[in-house]
Amino acid sequence: MNLHTQNFSVTRAAREELNGHKGMVVWFTGLSGAGKSTLANALEKRLHAHGRHTYLLDGDNVRQGLNSDLDFSVAGRAENIRRVGEVAALMADAGLIVITAFISPFRREREIARQRVGDTRFYEVFVDAPLTVCEARDPKGLYRKARAGILTDMTGIQSPYERPRHPDLTLETALLSVSESVSELLAGIEVAGCLEMPEYAL
Amino acid sequence: MNLHTQNFSVTRAAREELNGHKGMVVWFTGLSGAGKSTLANALEKRLHAHGRHTYLLDGDNVRQGLNSDLDFSVAGRAENIRRVGEVAALMADAGLIVITAFISPFRREREIARQRVGDTRFYEVFVDAPLTVCEARDPKGLYRKARAGILTDMTGIQSPYERPRHPDLTLETALLSVSESVSELLAGIEVAGCLEMPEYAL
Repeated sequence: MNLHTQNFSVTRAAREELNGHKGMVVWFTGLSGAGKSTLANALEKRLHAHGRHTYLLDGDNVRQGLNSDLDFSVAGRAENIRRVGEVAALMADAGLIVITAFISPFRREREIARQRVGDTRFYEVFVDAPLTVCEARDPKGLYRKARAGILTDMTGIQSPYERPRHPDLTLETALLSVSESVSELLAGIEVAGCLEMPEYAL
Repeated sequence: MNLHTQNFSVTRAAREELNGHKGMVVWFTGLSGAGKSTLANALEKRLHAHGRHTYLLDGDNVRQGLNSDLDFSVAGRAENIRRVGEVAALMADAGLIVITAFISPFRREREIARQRVGDTRFYEVFVDAPLTVCEARDPKGLYRKARAGILTDMTGIQSPYERPRHPDLTLETALLSVSESVSELLAGIEVAGCLEMPEYAL
């Protein structure tokens, strides 16, 4: 290996000062149909309206580009989430508030992402809804396909979902409106210190 | 495949308006020792000082994270550049001026990156210096190792470098100072329209 870490002159701190807020990752996890994309989208709109620099990474988007070489096997799905964690870490380092909306069913994968991003910049949101509710919503028709045997790896049906043990926030989307959920998100992120100006910029 | 492209509410145009400039990729290519990292670093400093939102992707940095699973074989190097192009495209979509500093020796790989980013947002800079000059500089000691047979895949020694046929800019670093090169870069990028406010933001 011939790798030499270079210390570039424009630091994350300098980028955050320019942006007026910290770079971080808001990591949504939950079943298909739980409401991850809806909440991620609504959160980004609110953050952007407040002048925050955001980006949304979505399983579908990333799958068509960076991860177009990966299949939906267990190994392919693990590598998918590993790369998302790495890209999110780079983008947070760039000073962005990165919002990710992936099922990301396995604790180990989410933990790896947290470690890559850094604990104080990683905000895990468990979008919690009963399987029956998600299946009734079935926004992409995936549960129907899984029940018909067309999909054989569907999380919640044939493949497990490991609930977060200590998420930074849990949102029960069968009980909360989108607006209520976004309010909780904004409050939670602010408490986590990630919407405030970094100390060195005050 | 069960992919559904989602139209999120915060668009690239909205992010660019917030930033005050377009998102784009400044893609440096050239031999090891030609001056890519030095110029990339100097360019980023100048852009940041002018309030531009930047990020620098470097072979060494990316190799330690996202692409830590790749080796230095021909296939591993191609996949390395493919992923860098995809990440650069995502970051440009996020509104950033992304600066990449990779040898990226093959035309085909650079062309794929250009297509992913989009022609009007991709600015290819050929950092041109004679091999003898690069080898005399040898900032990472790689040429010495290649001549000693420790490295067997060194671009310019055992592996070819395909010069760009129509780069957006060529900088002969054996003749130009860093400051002169950065001035040419800034002028070139501005002419390409990428430092100006996007039309919809005027």
